[in-house]
Amino acid sequence: MRRTEYEPAAGSTETTPATPFATRYELQAVTEPGRKLVALAETLATELAPRAAEFERDGHYPRSVIDRLAETGYLYSPVPEEFGGLGVVSAHDRLVAATRLARAEPSVTIGTNMHLAVVSTLARGYRAAKAAGREEMAQAAGATMARFVANKTAVATLVSEANQDLTQPATTAEARGDGWVLNGRKIFGTMAPHADLYSVAVTRRAEDGTPIYGFALVPKGTPGVTLNGDWDPIGMRASDSGSVTFSDCWIPGSALRDLAPAGTMTTALQERYLVPPLAHASAPLGIAEFAHGHVLSALASRGPDARGRRAIDRATIQQLAAENTVDLGAARAIFARAALAIDAYFARFAPDTAPVDEAHAISAEANAAKLFVTHAAMRVVERAMTMSGGAGYMNSNPLARAYRDVRAGPFMHPMASHVAYEYVGQVTLGKAPEAF
Amino acid sequence: MRRTEYEPAAGSTETTPATPFATRYELQAVTEPGRKLVALAETLATELAPRAAEFERDGHYPRSVIDRLAETGYLYSPVPEEFGGLGVVSAHDRLVAATRLARAEPSVTIGTNMHLAVVSTLARGYRAAKAAGREEMAQAAGATMARFVANKTAVATLVSEANQDLTQPATTAEARGDGWVLNGRKIFGTMAPHADLYSVAVTRRAEDGTPIYGFALVPKGTPGVTLNGDWDPIGMRASDSGSVTFSDCWIPGSALRDLAPAGTMTTALQERYLVPPLAHASAPLGIAEFAHGHVLSALASRGPDARGRRAIDRATIQQLAAENTVDLGAARAIFARAALAIDAYFARFAPDTAPVDEAHAISAEANAAKLFVTHAAMRVVERAMTMSGGAGYMNSNPLARAYRDVRAGPFMHPMASHVAYEYVGQVTLGKAPEAF
Amino acid sequence: MRRTEYEPAAGSTETTPATPFATRYELQAVTEPGRKLVALAETLATELAPRAAEFERDGHYPRSVIDRLAETGYLYSPVPEEFGGLGVVSAHDRLVAATRLARAEPSVTIGTNMHLAVVSTLARGYRAAKAAGREEMAQAAGATMARFVANKTAVATLVSEANQDLTQPATTAEARGDGWVLNGRKIFGTMAPHADLYSVAVTRRAEDGTPIYGFALVPKGTPGVTLNGDWDPIGMRASDSGSVTFSDCWIPGSALRDLAPAGTMTTALQERYLVPPLAHASAPLGIAEFAHGHVLSALASRGPDARGRRAIDRATIQQLAAENTVDLGAARAIFARAALAIDAYFARFAPDTAPVDEAHAISAEANAAKLFVTHAAMRVVERAMTMSGGAGYMNSNPLARAYRDVRAGPFMHPMASHVAYEYVGQVTLGKAPEAF
Amino acid sequence: MRRTEYEPAAGSTETTPATPFATRYELQAVTEPGRKLVALAETLATELAPRAAEFERDGHYPRSVIDRLAETGYLYSPVPEEFGGLGVVSAHDRLVAATRLARAEPSVTIGTNMHLAVVSTLARGYRAAKAAGREEMAQAAGATMARFVANKTAVATLVSEANQDLTQPATTAEARGDGWVLNGRKIFGTMAPHADLYSVAVTRRAEDGTPIYGFALVPKGTPGVTLNGDWDPIGMRASDSGSVTFSDCWIPGSALRDLAPAGTMTTALQERYLVPPLAHASAPLGIAEFAHGHVLSALASRGPDARGRRAIDRATIQQLAAENTVDLGAARAIFARAALAIDAYFARFAPDTAPVDEAHAISAEANAAKLFVTHAAMRVVERAMTMSGGAGYMNSNPLARAYRDVRAGPFMHPMASHVAYEYVGQVTLGKAPEAF
Repeated sequence: MRRTEYEPAAGSTETTPATPFATRYELQAVTEPGRKLVALAETLATELAPRAAEFERDGHYPRSVIDRLAETGYLYSPVPEEFGGLGVVSAHDRLVAATRLARAEPSVTIGTNMHLAVVSTLARGYRAAKAAGREEMAQAAGATMARFVANKTAVATLVSEANQDLTQPATTAEARGDGWVLNGRKIFGTMAPHADLYSVAVTRRAEDGTPIYGFALVPKGTPGVTLNGDWDPIGMRASDSGSVTFSDCWIPGSALRDLAPAGTMTTALQERYLVPPLAHASAPLGIAEFAHGHVLSALASRGPDARGRRAIDRATIQQLAAENTVDLGAARAIFARAALAIDAYFARFAPDTAPVDEAHAISAEANAAKLFVTHAAMRVVERAMTMSGGAGYMNSNPLARAYRDVRAGPFMHPMASHVAYEYVGQVTLGKAPEAF
Repeated sequence: MRRTEYEPAAGSTETTPATPFATRYELQAVTEPGRKLVALAETLATELAPRAAEFERDGHYPRSVIDRLAETGYLYSPVPEEFGGLGVVSAHDRLVAATRLARAEPSVTIGTNMHLAVVSTLARGYRAAKAAGREEMAQAAGATMARFVANKTAVATLVSEANQDLTQPATTAEARGDGWVLNGRKIFGTMAPHADLYSVAVTRRAEDGTPIYGFALVPKGTPGVTLNGDWDPIGMRASDSGSVTFSDCWIPGSALRDLAPAGTMTTALQERYLVPPLAHASAPLGIAEFAHGHVLSALASRGPDARGRRAIDRATIQQLAAENTVDLGAARAIFARAALAIDAYFARFAPDTAPVDEAHAISAEANAAKLFVTHAAMRVVERAMTMSGGAGYMNSNPLARAYRDVRAGPFMHPMASHVAYEYVGQVTLGKAPEAF
Repeated sequence: MRRTEYEPAAGSTETTPATPFATRYELQAVTEPGRKLVALAETLATELAPRAAEFERDGHYPRSVIDRLAETGYLYSPVPEEFGGLGVVSAHDRLVAATRLARAEPSVTIGTNMHLAVVSTLARGYRAAKAAGREEMAQAAGATMARFVANKTAVATLVSEANQDLTQPATTAEARGDGWVLNGRKIFGTMAPHADLYSVAVTRRAEDGTPIYGFALVPKGTPGVTLNGDWDPIGMRASDSGSVTFSDCWIPGSALRDLAPAGTMTTALQERYLVPPLAHASAPLGIAEFAHGHVLSALASRGPDARGRRAIDRATIQQLAAENTVDLGAARAIFARAALAIDAYFARFAPDTAPVDEAHAISAEANAAKLFVTHAAMRVVERAMTMSGGAGYMNSNPLARAYRDVRAGPFMHPMASHVAYEYVGQVTLGKAPEAF
Repeated sequence: MRRTEYEPAAGSTETTPATPFATRYELQAVTEPGRKLVALAETLATELAPRAAEFERDGHYPRSVIDRLAETGYLYSPVPEEFGGLGVVSAHDRLVAATRLARAEPSVTIGTNMHLAVVSTLARGYRAAKAAGREEMAQAAGATMARFVANKTAVATLVSEANQDLTQPATTAEARGDGWVLNGRKIFGTMAPHADLYSVAVTRRAEDGTPIYGFALVPKGTPGVTLNGDWDPIGMRASDSGSVTFSDCWIPGSALRDLAPAGTMTTALQERYLVPPLAHASAPLGIAEFAHGHVLSALASRGPDARGRRAIDRATIQQLAAENTVDLGAARAIFARAALAIDAYFARFAPDTAPVDEAHAISAEANAAKLFVTHAAMRVVERAMTMSGGAGYMNSNPLARAYRDVRAGPFMHPMASHVAYEYVGQVTLGKAPEAF
């Protein structure tokens, strides 16, 4: 039975007065499997935190990090326990866990989020098939998930393109022999360097020429796939999210699954794009929580200046600290509330059965949450840097990395902020949305 | 059994596609009695909405409004059902109901909130006494509540003073005979014009001179009480919150209850000030929800301008609509999350037993929520006015009232915004707070 | 010879240390006649300030106010001295004077600004005719101005319409006999109640049906003109800016002057709309200067609170004061700089000779200044109210009036803020502007 | 004779319609020598722009850059022509020139600004001595300046310290023999790597123990001076502003000049700190102007996306472009107005003769301008990055450098933003300022 996040679990260790205020009201899972996942994420964060600076310098983190996440089950959290996963049904709880991981390593977080998008879609399909009594379908999905667990499979989702139309990828699949040939270029190929499998959004043409949006599954090492290694951004450097090119890349016929008609925003497509806004927002939120806590610790231990004043006694520092508490409180709350709304949507509708305006409504809610969280996170990190008094501007200080990383949020999949504002505005005004 | 707000109640009417986006993700109660209360608040709001302009013009609403709220049980929502109340234990749910009422009539809402502060404290005391096996004490509290219900008693809480020290009222109670004599002046006497009973924060001196913070219960009509009728503000005009003077006002000895030592911020005092930040924030939140919905309806039915452009097609209108959805989403979420945290605090601690830093922590969380909500609400109403294109600046348009009403938020009890920022900043920084 | 505003005039009284910081860097005229005008505006402001509350209560100020402004020459500041005016050529200097008047009475200020729009256009035409050696034309303009001075004529400019197209009034002039018949409805008829003459923007049709934008001069008392007395807004109440209806209102043929082809944004039209953005911004700027100074004075004389703290020692008050100094400094500066740019534009181009993109560029600069000033002014008044600690929310406090008045800024002619953002954005991006 | 910046100089090339809107209303010098300096700065900017990426990568720019600035006279702009300089008396004009240079190379700009602080103080001293008829003193200053010009001398000003007290350096000068021994550590040693001379703020003790603030002139290569090469920040990397340590560094007696009593904010000290706020703000302003122009150019040449939409037609892009025009307009205006106020202050008061509250007033004005400019510049660059749609987040795009560089502004000498807010707030409120 689900609880509100504030109902203490039986036997839980209560918050004690020594808890710093910054983490006292942090987000909590609402299901038991979710609570375990969040605890696991905290453990993994503790392991990764000391290595984040090195990963950033290298512009890369090693595959061993992914293996560790696979072994602990983090990578397969949505998979039912009978197939070797952690059985975390709640997207909310997985997203809370992602914020914990992101406090230490946002680059790893967004990579694993992309992977989890595929795994959780599988798990949702499995549950829907079970519920509908379609045992064969369910067992197939279960077997795939079990194989993922056994092989520690990592999946990269390749959707973004330059100047993209979210409803119709420019990357194409053309029938050739009993398979398909892929051509196109994907950007933001987060996780691709470590992936065993690429899940690639493509457009194919039906026999009558109608464009169809689908996902192609391409194993690592398939001829015609090139990782371009062209990732040199301000932040999120360790995510190694370079572009990936597909040149006459052949895959067997079974490797392409149709999703929905292309060129229009369908319920099926919206459901694929529903968790990603929050998944991507989990990174800025975790970064902001880190930055807030970091500068508070630093100031608490900082002695008086030459005129005998402690930073924590200064008016403007108090004001900035309060503004961060307010912004972070609102960011956590809207993030969690949108995530719970997605859980409720998934509980209410079987895949691809909701009216499209239901899908737009929940998508607008998720994108509104992403907008708030990403921009609030930037404000929080910005204030933390100001509070640091210059220290945080130096690359040796982890606030510097936070400052550079957090700026990635507004550009992230599926809609950059300026597009998301148009989309949310149109849904709010009751217009058929046209901005994607 | 409590649910998260998104789990549909058995037999609930599901949201249908026709629901406007503005209310689709509105706050919901998390308990069954709470759900009934919210439905009741919606009914009452429907009754009051058409009269709000008249109440404002009069600078007053009639006592019949209070009687109606009493009869329906709204005024006694925290009272256990056995004593004639609605049995709503959750502060969260009462606060959600307050936002619904505030959409129609924020002046009535803040008046009833002040009354409910007293009633819910009684109910909490009753439950604590029961839990501790102190039956006599419990029965006394129960009897008081039952009397309130039977007599449709309305209570006004008189705490605020000019230039106040939240921890030590300037209004005094001096022993005289077997009673007390009160002297002082209270401001923001919301609900006083309709109250049968005033609950007045006072300082008395112990025999050794130690100041003690207490509440005096003064029946309407007691000699020495003057309602000054001096309420002429920009907004919240119908609340008729003039000052109240006590001049040598005698009350019997039993009418004064000590709360805690004065001059310092105790757990006991913080617990009295814990729900009020959100209770006062419920008005701006309801106002903002109203303004948002109102302007969206107005624009939906507005035809093209002289150049053939519809307002909802304009870029800047879409941007403003989106910003309102984002701000309102965050405001609802932080409001609900802080309210649930208060429910958890009350469930965890018997009255006046928590360590004071626990009390400060939950108070900072509540005040942070109030800060966000009141300022976000102002932004939402401001944008709604901009979206109205000038129409909302005219007093005949309900947006004008919303604009004037919403500005009261940052001044409201217990801490004005600029004090609350200091307080929240100090708690955030781990300093012993000194701003009240 | 013009000076920068900081070069002290010969014999000027220097700023002394006793000058409060709030006014020390206030705007100054850059020409000698302008300096005299600013001094006159300060005198008039001193006279009007004590009456502003009464004017607001009445929703009206008496004609005697206009007469006083006429007698002192304020109403005819652009008129050359030889025709009885003050000879203030600089729009910058007239705008600075308007901010001084607005500190005391923004409603009177916007009324006189509308009148001055007509008078200064006449004066510009006079100077252009002189410069071009067109003596007859010059003398005609001079004679009109002299008549205005002699008769203390007040002019109301009636341009705004509901759902308007700035380039083509819905109010029409149709030829009838040797004159014209006007039909239509104007809103924001500021100054109309006191005007001797209405300058009305109309569309007439040329013989081939081409629409032409023109101004009709309609004397007070002309049959068919109705002042609707329907002004009931939140603020700027004394401006009495109700709507004016023209129903089959006949005027002689000579009373209509063509300006330019209608339906497109011409240089001629832009030049009519060039000073108005700043003229309307002068009111919010003056209001903000007043509010800033007012609350600083109030706090300076406010004693310690119950805990011995003075408001001026509080961190958050200092922060708010600083933010107001910063915002006001930027508002003054962008206002003055745009005004000087307009002076330079007028010095460079004879009327209606500039390429249209020059006209768009200077118009975008003026509208950007209006956007900044109106919104900064709202922030300044908002902070002043917060600093007042609740006092300013009461109608007896002049901050309350400032708060209500300042909100009119974003709706004011010629472009409401949300339209102005579109327009400025389009000019910035090098697009042909289409938002008016 | 000085002109307002909008009066065209004789023979000036007029702005033509082809000028992009972004630069059409850029700042202009107000004196003839200033106009030449601005033109020179534009030439130098054209030379430096292509090398900025390389300088950043190296974390250094070569001495040849300084030599080029010396040869052209840029480094000696305040020096009277008779001593080989450009004779630019106006601080305003030098600051406008700095913004032009900063569009291409902000790191070089802040280095040269620090050098110019020393040179312009010398020039001011020279003019004051001349005016006072103190020829010998004047000639000595003139000779120093002439030597600087002849030797292409570059000076680094070393003032900042960790946890500093602006009124009393922790770096000390102790008498030893006929000279002084310096000990201490300076941070933000901008220009130090190329300097021939360090101007070091120190505290010495008078015989009675009174602390005295002075400047020591230390030639490059003096034993005991160590450049620590520890500059690894987010941005402004090419400025190579590492810390500098002085360990028992001996200088002759004549190399130390007393400025004023230490430990208090004197007029003498304020005058040293008067131009620096704007000098440091010139870098963010130039960066913002660059970023604004860069993204506008990029968008103008960007074709339609997959759905046929051009970026410049998108609502949100127009809104962001407009907001940048507004913010940049206000930033330019407040920057120029504060600079002209400083010119007027210098014209009015001989060095160290103004009452200290005059010095505080002008300092508050300068710091308010710095606050606005640095924060507006961050907003402008932030929006430019959003408008870039992700492109600007890549290090290959110059917006990435702008984004990292512009964040340095709020930390810059003399007061970080959070200290400056306190200071400006205190001056605004009429309190004796205590925040430095």
